Amino acid sequence: MPTRYEELWSLSVRRGFLWPAADLYGGFAGFYDYGHLGAAMKRNFEDVWLETFLGLDENYHLIDGSIALPEAPLKASGHVDHFTDLLIRCTKCKETYRADLLLEEITHVAHEGLTAAEADAKIKELKVRCPRCKGELGPAQPFNMMFPLAVGPLGADRAYLRPETAQSAYLNFKREFEALRRRLPMGLAVIGRCFRNEISPRQGAYRMREFLQAELQIFFDPATWGDAVPFESIAAKEVRVAFAADKAKDGSEGHTAHDLVARGLPKFYVYHLAVVQDFYLRVLAVPEERFRFAELDEKERAFYNKVHFDIEVKQDSLSGFKEVGGVHYRTDHDLGGHQAASKERLEVTVDGRKVLPHVLELSFGVDRNLWALLDLGLRTADRTVLRVPPRLAPIPVAVFPLVSKDGLPERARAVWRSLPRQWRGFYDEGGSIGKRYARMDEVGTPFCVTIDHQSITDGTVTVRERDSSDQKRVAEGTLTATLADLLGGTRAFAAL
Amino acid sequence: MPTRYEELWSLSVRRGFLWPAADLYGGFAGFYDYGHLGAAMKRNFEDVWLETFLGLDENYHLIDGSIALPEAPLKASGHVDHFTDLLIRCTKCKETYRADLLLEEITHVAHEGLTAAEADAKIKELKVRCPRCKGELGPAQPFNMMFPLAVGPLGADRAYLRPETAQSAYLNFKREFEALRRRLPMGLAVIGRCFRNEISPRQGAYRMREFLQAELQIFFDPATWGDAVPFESIAAKEVRVAFAADKAKDGSEGHTAHDLVARGLPKFYVYHLAVVQDFYLRVLAVPEERFRFAELDEKERAFYNKVHFDIEVKQDSLSGFKEVGGVHYRTDHDLGGHQAASKERLEVTVDGRKVLPHVLELSFGVDRNLWALLDLGLRTADRTVLRVPPRLAPIPVAVFPLVSKDGLPERARAVWRSLPRQWRGFYDEGGSIGKRYARMDEVGTPFCVTIDHQSITDGTVTVRERDSSDQKRVAEGTLTATLADLLGGTRAFAAL
Repeated sequence: MPTRYEELWSLSVRRGFLWPAADLYGGFAGFYDYGHLGAAMKRNFEDVWLETFLGLDENYHLIDGSIALPEAPLKASGHVDHFTDLLIRCTKCKETYRADLLLEEITHVAHEGLTAAEADAKIKELKVRCPRCKGELGPAQPFNMMFPLAVGPLGADRAYLRPETAQSAYLNFKREFEALRRRLPMGLAVIGRCFRNEISPRQGAYRMREFLQAELQIFFDPATWGDAVPFESIAAKEVRVAFAADKAKDGSEGHTAHDLVARGLPKFYVYHLAVVQDFYLRVLAVPEERFRFAELDEKERAFYNKVHFDIEVKQDSLSGFKEVGGVHYRTDHDLGGHQAASKERLEVTVDGRKVLPHVLELSFGVDRNLWALLDLGLRTADRTVLRVPPRLAPIPVAVFPLVSKDGLPERARAVWRSLPRQWRGFYDEGGSIGKRYARMDEVGTPFCVTIDHQSITDGTVTVRERDSSDQKRVAEGTLTATLADLLGGTRAFAAL
Repeated sequence: MPTRYEELWSLSVRRGFLWPAADLYGGFAGFYDYGHLGAAMKRNFEDVWLETFLGLDENYHLIDGSIALPEAPLKASGHVDHFTDLLIRCTKCKETYRADLLLEEITHVAHEGLTAAEADAKIKELKVRCPRCKGELGPAQPFNMMFPLAVGPLGADRAYLRPETAQSAYLNFKREFEALRRRLPMGLAVIGRCFRNEISPRQGAYRMREFLQAELQIFFDPATWGDAVPFESIAAKEVRVAFAADKAKDGSEGHTAHDLVARGLPKFYVYHLAVVQDFYLRVLAVPEERFRFAELDEKERAFYNKVHFDIEVKQDSLSGFKEVGGVHYRTDHDLGGHQAASKERLEVTVDGRKVLPHVLELSFGVDRNLWALLDLGLRTADRTVLRVPPRLAPIPVAVFPLVSKDGLPERARAVWRSLPRQWRGFYDEGGSIGKRYARMDEVGTPFCVTIDHQSITDGTVTVRERDSSDQKRVAEGTLTATLADLLGGTRAFAAL
């Protein structure tokens, strides 16, 4: 029996979701390419993400920044000095390991946030040796995960590939604040590639060296924003949380938003936990019990965060809850750092007060989210079907003639051509109709339209729904409108 | 008087199109960031480009590949050995120059494709000295423009940032050919970042070190494709071309597609020149006399191309016709190279014949195209107005109350909220109505909707068109449909 991970990976490679980059040359650890289905699904995810999070406030906008950044801002942000993992090297075979992951593999307990001395002591205590050759392990040493870049013909300008998109937003804060007419809150979103030179990119597409982040940085006035967010609208909602002490357990507890504020979390922060949860449960259709926020304690959380919960989705292919994003209260760490280092004033005037805005970051790993959706969607019980939300499906609609004769192909092609171009509908007349349905089920196409002999006589076509395999007849003239309603979720298939 | 370039740059920075990256820290030569207007326009460009070029054939698809590539495929493609410019260094002040650009600046004639010896001879002949310090120039030396990347904890895996997206398509050819059920032609499009370590990134946003490419690689059977493209549909069309001998001149000649084939260009190639020209003239609304294809001769064209015309747009800010893309017949250069180096068979079987597919590449510099659209769009004669095509406008619709009282703001906000979310409509009630129109004209918003006192009594609103500043009254209930038609170009404003 293949594992869930193998099943997913096999479907992904065979049908065109994603696969290792440069696999023609034996692959390239930590790098992945997207095939035509994966790329379409990724663009759909971006659209849905933008609609949801830019939709939160009229002053939230998408911007775009260079992937390469000069050294000065990354020095100011702390990344040059602190964006490190602990590297351990076998003294005998020279294999390299990430200290915390090596200890986690052996003890099955997370070991994030250790100092080098603590890691060395732990390795000594547990008598850990090289898993590959049993040789003695060398001392743990901090290893900076940013890729350096030498820019210019003499390579004189030291730069790095950004490890997160956030810095692009901070560097553009001042220009955008002016262009957007000086209002807070102001949100700057970036969807872009990031790079981390991971020591052990061994978990398939989960720990990647090049990856796509969708991040929203919300700049706000800490004195007033807590009262400005519409907290009461979500105060009674349950938010699924695993506090730091409990998150090794495989689950979460529901707490009302109100209760989380009573426990000391800022109102604006809890409000956005509810917003993010709604995105997962409603828009991405993640089952409630597979979603949670996992708190990071002081030791685990990134050096720039004051409050930090990971967004986690439970995935069978990755054996449990795995991080797919995070909600980070970064305070004025970043703008303060850039203000000090650049000597440019980043304080702004709000209602006559000088304010250095604080930042709430909503951060999403796009690749990880897509993998999670594939994992949750794949069902192989009686037939193979990929139950991804219709709006994210790489091919929203397929059109078939029932058989390849009697004028049905011509009619089916005409129907296919009449669909909105941006749907990129798929036309197919190869093989039996059952086989064609099965092929579309496997890639998550929510609706298949079939033109049969009755279509010629009465102008109706059948629409088949992926999840139920039920079929309904629809007048050809109303097909586009009906499909638009079904795909947009404004009409239920059962009600047709 | 500011130059056209200064005018554009000033608008761009002030309103939020683009500006130098990291300018908080004094900038970062060759790197640029996009503000909220530039990012929105870029995404619109991507959507229009995808719709146009994926729409050419049902077997053309978007894929996505890693920006970092290992050395082996770039060795096979020829980039490691041949992707070079000639670098000249002043022996006194150490300033660096790109040999061809230095010679072009002095002689006002293009000097692409020189060998190092030819450049040295030319510099000696013209007695060229360092423009900065008048010192003696050192010998010309090939400089590889790819950024190297050291991957892994020991930096042992040598890689590069890709200088074009094309290789991502070639590396995925085999997997996609299987996933897409073995049919030719097959088109693989990539929209993604590329990096070139330019020696002299001095022309503002034109010669960038990090840039966005939109490229379509069409894999085809050279024995049959010439007859398979619908050439007759465009045979009589005029294609605007400047042949290599004439392109120093500021213009082009119209040749029928038929005539270009008679001159020896392949049918499939000329067909795609017509398709690309149609994209520029019709979709991007570039005036005919500002568009041309400029032929590159054997010396100028890239080492992998057999036929190569640049796509050029005449821009006042850049003093004439400038390259914004290219149509490249790359033959089997790339797949052949990868087949030999990877030892993987890339030949496919078509109609019982073994075929190593040839490649036609349609390549577009997204940043350069956006700049060209800003250049062509900006009018400052009586009022400042940015006449970009409605579908590319960063803000398609703005909604205003005529005045900030009498219940008009509430009503206007309701209208604004009723517009489709993906339009990202803009609401504004600050300042006089004239000032608000002027602000939208400046960023190219094609339609402004105003709610006035009459709106309250009869339920109509005014729609103002950017280019004519004409206004028409429209019933509130039909507003979304009317705007959708206007933006989609299926209805003319004058006909309202």
